[in-house]
Amino acid sequence: MINKILIANRGEIAVRIIRACREMHIASVAVYSESDRDSLHVRLADEAVCIGPPQPGRSYLNISNVISAALVKGADAVHPGYGFLSENDKFAEMCAANGLVFIGPPAEAMRLMGNKVQARETMLASGVPVVPGSQGVISDAGQALQIAAEIGYPVLIKASSGGGGKGMRVAQYEEEVVRGILTARSEATAAFGSGDIYMEKYVEEPRHIEIQLLADNYGNIVHLGERDCSIQRRNQKIIEESPSTAVDEELRRRLGDAAVMAARAVGYRSAGTVEFLLDKHDNFYFIEMNTRIQVEHPVTEMITGIDLVKEQIRIAAGEELGYRQQDIRFSGWAIECRINAEDPERNFMPCPGKIIEFQPPGGPGVRLDSAIFAGWEVPSHYDSMLGKLIVWGKDRDEAVVRMQRALDELNVTGVKTIIPFHRRILNNAFFRRGEIYTNFIQRRIMPQG
Amino acid sequence: MINKILIANRGEIAVRIIRACREMHIASVAVYSESDRDSLHVRLADEAVCIGPPQPGRSYLNISNVISAALVKGADAVHPGYGFLSENDKFAEMCAANGLVFIGPPAEAMRLMGNKVQARETMLASGVPVVPGSQGVISDAGQALQIAAEIGYPVLIKASSGGGGKGMRVAQYEEEVVRGILTARSEATAAFGSGDIYMEKYVEEPRHIEIQLLADNYGNIVHLGERDCSIQRRNQKIIEESPSTAVDEELRRRLGDAAVMAARAVGYRSAGTVEFLLDKHDNFYFIEMNTRIQVEHPVTEMITGIDLVKEQIRIAAGEELGYRQQDIRFSGWAIECRINAEDPERNFMPCPGKIIEFQPPGGPGVRLDSAIFAGWEVPSHYDSMLGKLIVWGKDRDEAVVRMQRALDELNVTGVKTIIPFHRRILNNAFFRRGEIYTNFIQRRIMPQG
Repeated sequence: MINKILIANRGEIAVRIIRACREMHIASVAVYSESDRDSLHVRLADEAVCIGPPQPGRSYLNISNVISAALVKGADAVHPGYGFLSENDKFAEMCAANGLVFIGPPAEAMRLMGNKVQARETMLASGVPVVPGSQGVISDAGQALQIAAEIGYPVLIKASSGGGGKGMRVAQYEEEVVRGILTARSEATAAFGSGDIYMEKYVEEPRHIEIQLLADNYGNIVHLGERDCSIQRRNQKIIEESPSTAVDEELRRRLGDAAVMAARAVGYRSAGTVEFLLDKHDNFYFIEMNTRIQVEHPVTEMITGIDLVKEQIRIAAGEELGYRQQDIRFSGWAIECRINAEDPERNFMPCPGKIIEFQPPGGPGVRLDSAIFAGWEVPSHYDSMLGKLIVWGKDRDEAVVRMQRALDELNVTGVKTIIPFHRRILNNAFFRRGEIYTNFIQRRIMPQG
Repeated sequence: MINKILIANRGEIAVRIIRACREMHIASVAVYSESDRDSLHVRLADEAVCIGPPQPGRSYLNISNVISAALVKGADAVHPGYGFLSENDKFAEMCAANGLVFIGPPAEAMRLMGNKVQARETMLASGVPVVPGSQGVISDAGQALQIAAEIGYPVLIKASSGGGGKGMRVAQYEEEVVRGILTARSEATAAFGSGDIYMEKYVEEPRHIEIQLLADNYGNIVHLGERDCSIQRRNQKIIEESPSTAVDEELRRRLGDAAVMAARAVGYRSAGTVEFLLDKHDNFYFIEMNTRIQVEHPVTEMITGIDLVKEQIRIAAGEELGYRQQDIRFSGWAIECRINAEDPERNFMPCPGKIIEFQPPGGPGVRLDSAIFAGWEVPSHYDSMLGKLIVWGKDRDEAVVRMQRALDELNVTGVKTIIPFHRRILNNAFFRRGEIYTNFIQRRIMPQG
C-alpha cells in the first residue's frame, strides 16, 4: 500500500500527479525550488517542501534534497514525473535504499535503455527492428558499397564521434557512397579528431510513432496503441495525436508486439514508451525507450479511458493489471498542443513573465493540463512548457476543429505563447490530410528556416 | 445548409451552442440584455445584438426583438437553448414564418407535449406507461375505493385544480381513502373554490430517470440511454449522472423503447428528453417530455461521445442521423454538478455579485461548461446557475472521486456557490452506494429542512 507520495517534479506534471493522488486518496507532498514557491503544484498538494534554490542542479536534480524531503515528510513513495530525475537509475536506487517506492521501472531497465548503444544491441538481440546499418566502423569504400547494397539506398554515412550534422552524408547511389565516405571522414577528422565512420539506412520522411506500454510485476504487458509525434520543431515535439493517420489495425498490432518485446527484453515494469521511426512502406525501427511517463500521455488516456498515472501508482504498489490486451478499446481521436511560453516571432525565445489573465477553454472534449493561474510569475529557470491543451473528437476532423476552437478560447496574457504557431499548423492542408513527417514544420510551415 | 445561427439565450448554454457553431464553421450571433453586455457568450460569439433591458420579458422572452435581431444579422437559424423561449411553440412558428430554421422540434410536437393533460392522454393512447389513476374526477368514496383497489396502494388523492400540496392526501389503506377524500375535498374547496378531486397511484421513493432521444426528419429515432436526476432540491435538479445505478441493460431497453414510442406519438424531431418516475420494482411512468436540449445533456455526451448540440443543428439542417440504435456505445460513468451562485447556509439565497478569482479544475475526465470569468458581474435578473462541472470516470467510483477532486480545485471567489453543498452530497454514504431517490436531499442531507 502507498499512502503518501512525494512528487519530485514541478509544473503541469506535478499537478497531474497530485490529481491522481487525490483521486486515489493518497496524500501528496510537493517539492519546490525558491522560484516555485507560489506555484500551482504547491497550492494543490497536501504538503510542500522547499528543496533549494532555483537552479535545477541545486533543487529538482539534487537527489539528497529530494530524498530527505520524502523521509522528513514520511512519504512512502516517490513519483519522478518526466525530465529531472525521472530517468536517473541512481535516483531510483537511492529511493529503494531509503525504503521509498520508486514509481517507475526497475533501475536495471532504466540503465539498459538509457545507454543508446546498449539499447540498440539489446533490441537487435531480441528481434526488435532497429535501423539497419554497419556493425561498427567501416574500413573502406568497398565494404561501404557492400553494406549499402545489403541495407538498401538511401544510406546515411555518420561519424562515430559525430554530432550536430558534422561528418554526416546522405548517399542515394553508389558514387555518392564513395564520395560521401571521403568527405565525411575528412570532415569528421577535422571536427572530432577521429575519421571513424559507420553507415545506416537513411529513413526518408519518417514519422515519429511511439507505443504506450503498461507492464506489471507479474509479467503482464499491454500496449495502449500509438501516438504520432511527428510534429516537431528542432526535435522537440509540439503536437501529438492518437491514433496516427499512418497506422492501421495490422500495423498497430505489429508495432505493439515489437514494443512489448522490447519491454520484455529489459524486464520492464510501470508505464513506458517505445519510440519508433516509421517509413512510408510501413517499416519501423526502434529509436529508444522512454522509461517514464511522457508529456503526451493524455492523448492515450483520452482514447482508452485509462488513467496512466494511476496505473503507474497501482503497479508500483504491487497491483496486477486488471485487463488484458484484448480488453483495451480505442475510441475517437485525441490531439495535444503544448502551450509553451515562447515567442514564435522571435525564434521561439522563451518568454517568462507574469500571467495577467487566464481564461481556459471548456465545453465538450476539452482537457487542460496546466500549471497556469492568473498572477503566476513564470520563472525563467525551467522548461518553457506551461501546460498542454488536449482535445478529443469522434474522429480526427472533429478533434482538429475542436482544437482550433479551444485554442481560440484559451486566453493567456502577460507572456507570449506558441498558440499562434499551433494555429498555423492546424490550418495547414498537409496537416489536415494527416501528411505529417518529422520534417513537417521545416518543410510545410517554416521553409525559410 | 445553415450558415449563421442566432442563439436566443444567455449564460453557459449560449456559450455551449457557440462552441458547437464554431466547430461546425457556422457563424454565431449572440443576443444580450443590457445587464449581459459584458458576458462570456457575447465575447465568444462572432456577432452580438442587444435585445433589450435586463428584465427577461423585455429581452430574452421578447419574441419580436429576438426575431428582428436574427433578421438584421442575416441569421438563417435560431437555437433557443433551454428555458426562455425554448418550449414556446408560438416562437417556433414565428421563426418559420420569418424564414428562420428553428433548431428544435416541430411546433405541433411542442404543443402536444406542453399541455400536460393532453400529453398524458397521448401517452396513454400510445401505450407509454403513465401513473395509473382515475380517468377524471371521482364522485364518491365507493368509486374511490374501487379505483384504489385497481391501481394498488398507496394512492394519492389530488385536487383537480390543486397545487402546492394543498388538497393532497396519501392513502395507504381503505380507511385512509375514505378519510382522505373528505379532507382533500374540503381543503380544495376552501383553497381553490372547487372540491373536484381525482386519484392516482402514489409512487414511493421514485427516481427521476430520463431518456435522451435524437430524432431526424426521416423517422429515425435513437435513444442515448438514461440520466438519473434524482438529486433534487425543491424539484430543482442539482446533480445528474449517467448511467443510473438503478438501470440495467434490460430496463434501459424498456425505458428506451417507451421513450422512442412517446416521441413517435407526437411526430418528434431534434434532441428531446422523456422523463419518467421509476419505482423500486422497475415500474416506470411517463412524467413529461422536454422538447429542447437539457441542462444535464453533457453527462450523456461524455458516455456516448455524441455531441448533442451539433446533432440538433445537423437534424435542423435536414441531415439524416448517421447511426442506428445498435451503433450507440456507452462507456464509463459521468456526473454533473450544477454550480449555482446561491448560499447553502442561507436557504440557497441567490448570490449575484462580481467574480473576483476564477481558477477552473483540469486534468483527466473533467469538463466545465460555464459562463464564468474573472471580473464578471453576475447579474441578479436570471437563473443562479453559473455553469456545470461534469466529470467522466471509468466507473461510478472513479467519477465520484474525480468530482470531489475537481470541486476542490475549482476556485470561484466573489460570490457564494453551492460547491460546499455538493461536497456533502458526494460524501454521503447513501449517495456513494447509489441509493438515491427524489427525496434524497430532504431525507439524507437536510432532514431538518
